[in-house]
Amino acid sequence: MGSKSPAEQKRCTILDSMVDNRYRSEIPAIVDMVINSCSEKGCFDHLDAAVIPSKESLIEIIDLIKDILFPGYFGDQTVDRNTLSYHIGNEITDLFSKLSKQITNSIIQECNRYDEDCTDCIDRGQEETLKFLKKIPELRSMLASDIVATFEGDPAAKSYDEIIFSYPGIFAMTVYRSAHQLHRQGISILPRIMTEYAHSIVGIDIHPGARIGKGFFIDHGTGVVIGETCEIGDNVRIYQGVTLGSLSFPKNEKGELIRGEKRHPTIEDDVIIYSNATILGGETRIGARSVIGGNVWITKSVPPDTKVMIEEPRLIFKEKK
Amino acid sequence: MGSKSPAEQKRCTILDSMVDNRYRSEIPAIVDMVINSCSEKGCFDHLDAAVIPSKESLIEIIDLIKDILFPGYFGDQTVDRNTLSYHIGNEITDLFSKLSKQITNSIIQECNRYDEDCTDCIDRGQEETLKFLKKIPELRSMLASDIVATFEGDPAAKSYDEIIFSYPGIFAMTVYRSAHQLHRQGISILPRIMTEYAHSIVGIDIHPGARIGKGFFIDHGTGVVIGETCEIGDNVRIYQGVTLGSLSFPKNEKGELIRGEKRHPTIEDDVIIYSNATILGGETRIGARSVIGGNVWITKSVPPDTKVMIEEPRLIFKEKK
Amino acid sequence: MGSKSPAEQKRCTILDSMVDNRYRSEIPAIVDMVINSCSEKGCFDHLDAAVIPSKESLIEIIDLIKDILFPGYFGDQTVDRNTLSYHIGNEITDLFSKLSKQITNSIIQECNRYDEDCTDCIDRGQEETLKFLKKIPELRSMLASDIVATFEGDPAAKSYDEIIFSYPGIFAMTVYRSAHQLHRQGISILPRIMTEYAHSIVGIDIHPGARIGKGFFIDHGTGVVIGETCEIGDNVRIYQGVTLGSLSFPKNEKGELIRGEKRHPTIEDDVIIYSNATILGGETRIGARSVIGGNVWITKSVPPDTKVMIEEPRLIFKEKK
Repeated sequence: MGSKSPAEQKRCTILDSMVDNRYRSEIPAIVDMVINSCSEKGCFDHLDAAVIPSKESLIEIIDLIKDILFPGYFGDQTVDRNTLSYHIGNEITDLFSKLSKQITNSIIQECNRYDEDCTDCIDRGQEETLKFLKKIPELRSMLASDIVATFEGDPAAKSYDEIIFSYPGIFAMTVYRSAHQLHRQGISILPRIMTEYAHSIVGIDIHPGARIGKGFFIDHGTGVVIGETCEIGDNVRIYQGVTLGSLSFPKNEKGELIRGEKRHPTIEDDVIIYSNATILGGETRIGARSVIGGNVWITKSVPPDTKVMIEEPRLIFKEKK
Repeated sequence: MGSKSPAEQKRCTILDSMVDNRYRSEIPAIVDMVINSCSEKGCFDHLDAAVIPSKESLIEIIDLIKDILFPGYFGDQTVDRNTLSYHIGNEITDLFSKLSKQITNSIIQECNRYDEDCTDCIDRGQEETLKFLKKIPELRSMLASDIVATFEGDPAAKSYDEIIFSYPGIFAMTVYRSAHQLHRQGISILPRIMTEYAHSIVGIDIHPGARIGKGFFIDHGTGVVIGETCEIGDNVRIYQGVTLGSLSFPKNEKGELIRGEKRHPTIEDDVIIYSNATILGGETRIGARSVIGGNVWITKSVPPDTKVMIEEPRLIFKEKK
Repeated sequence: MGSKSPAEQKRCTILDSMVDNRYRSEIPAIVDMVINSCSEKGCFDHLDAAVIPSKESLIEIIDLIKDILFPGYFGDQTVDRNTLSYHIGNEITDLFSKLSKQITNSIIQECNRYDEDCTDCIDRGQEETLKFLKKIPELRSMLASDIVATFEGDPAAKSYDEIIFSYPGIFAMTVYRSAHQLHRQGISILPRIMTEYAHSIVGIDIHPGARIGKGFFIDHGTGVVIGETCEIGDNVRIYQGVTLGSLSFPKNEKGELIRGEKRHPTIEDDVIIYSNATILGGETRIGARSVIGGNVWITKSVPPDTKVMIEEPRLIFKEKK
């Protein structure tokens, strides 16, 4: 190194051979320290425990579900009607195998958490997978209604293909509707990992516990939050930044949060909620056909057929110096 | 299975061999049900149809465009001036081949949609690709102006390298400016898939139809929405959560949305729009050098050299019990 | 081509052999134009320069850090206590090798920027990596406090496993706390690329320069912005869309931005900040145990034990025609 001119040194790239054993010799002590640190300070590990559902596998599962729900859209070759049954047959077989593994992982995980026996986890994993697969026609029909609602609600949409292929709201709903089905079957963790994956891709955070009717259209979508106990009717439309959240967090006598109670609002059929509106509380109900304006903050119920706008804050117009 | 102790069972991992044929035997009936479900209930498929532009390929295309626009930044080895022409030559050849395929896919897709003949799709795909490649110097120059504007507008930016390498706004603008060029050439679907990909990465949703002048700086960016018919002048700066959206959706006599009309605002040169402001409507025009404050909601035009702030809602300060 | 029926042409897929040399022959002229364009028009390149830290490598580094901080959570096989030391030993060795390369790249990059000699970059790269590795127990302990705060603050969280595995806030904090450690060691660029990667995944934008105490809980998180010079105490909780930003950008006598000054707020212990609140300015201090309501916009300090709410804008309820 010393013989290089400064100019060369400045531009040097690092070769593996330059890694110095002087430094590497310190590694074992660090490894010991890291392993022992958990006993001294609080930390989380997951040793000797069932494998948690794998994210990589879930991404494959979601891709398979998309291919099966929308045949011919996402592959890199034309799917034709003659060989469709081979195509779908192959993908459903693959999905059965991958999904049943991850559902079983979730069930074992849950058994361990309650320290229960897990005698029929693997059977139950496969049964629940079959139950899910039988719901595919229903999922297709629900998602078709979301796509039609998107086309009818967005003047920027040029075709159904564009919507299926590129709209973030449709991706979020595909994952949510699949995860919600698993949630209804009592599968834990897995549905949450699925919707959080969709959240990370499109910025739309829908809890798999929420109940959403047909023809749901989310435009743009970044920042949308739909909480665990929301109930949403048919043909509802929402825009970016809308929060359907909780208002307060009741605690039990030990001061611990009570989990599972209805904390999020009910939205009736044909409601429209414009961008960045916030609607909070488990007893808040937005009546059918109401329109909630942008930026509105609501914590009480609204009767049907009502338009709610904020009285816009007065704007101050100043000439710039 | 039955011979395992409960402790072992709890910790069991799933082996492929445990997958039970009892369950797998139900798959064929499910496949039939899925295939036949489309005739009974509404659903979307894309059978016997042209392949839709591939997202995987688009990601490669965007990576190539980034490498060509910013040579030496994104690869894993130093690019030197002597061999630059081989490097760029190789990447442009690769881009030509990948992009012309996807453009051709888009053209065929569009032909099919209108049930038109597609006699020269492949030739046109290659012609449009060349047209795009010839615009690279212009794209580099526009993006350079965006990078300079970012450095001049953000005290947290320490160097141009940091901006090019890590700023989400620059990624969004790289993809948008490329997609907009394709949009201007009349290519459909492909530009939308490109900007929705950027949207999924950085949370910034710019429609490829929007027109944006040079020196555009988006800070932080999550939640930004810029609609299809926006016109934005030079040296405009916007912050996270800003929406430049539409106000109403005019319908034709059949009750269908009218698509393509100017629905989104015009922003003149040197305007600054702070976080979470919303500006709506095709006739709304923000005059040059105006400053729009955070959280402002505007649906009418603003003259040049004006500062618009909301009269801040009165805050209630309560001592906590 | 000419002999195909229109119907066939409509459905044609593109074969590589169809790429026409007529078009490819134009490529060399385009390559020359692209290479020469940089001299005529403004543009950025990074030629003959040190390699910038690689994003692909950083993703591997972040995955390794997650595995080491939370053993057994993210792999695809059970980690047991008997062989834990091999597992951790192997991952720390791998992390040392990958991280020291990228830290060295960052140091060389910084040397070049100031046109300084870079005589001990590679040694310093390895020293700084060891310094980082020794902080792992502290990082584990800090992140454990964040996880506990999340469970205690969110009634939708069913278990610690669910939080570690799927909560976007925990991912953001894992990356931020690691990047902040490197930032404190004076490493440039690398920490910013790390937090911008997390931003792209979860929509939470935390600058590595911010200082954040233990037990920090971000719920939902999309749109959160925490600026470079923020100081946040212990047990603070924030929701989606919260901005802790700067208010003004002081410039020096040459009209250039002054970089590095405290521009972002101070948040004391046990503060809660609800969704979409905006708190701005380097002298703004939110006193301990205060609660900042949703949508509040604050540019002045708030005393301890205070609840701040906006006087909600009056809502207009209109019956729909």
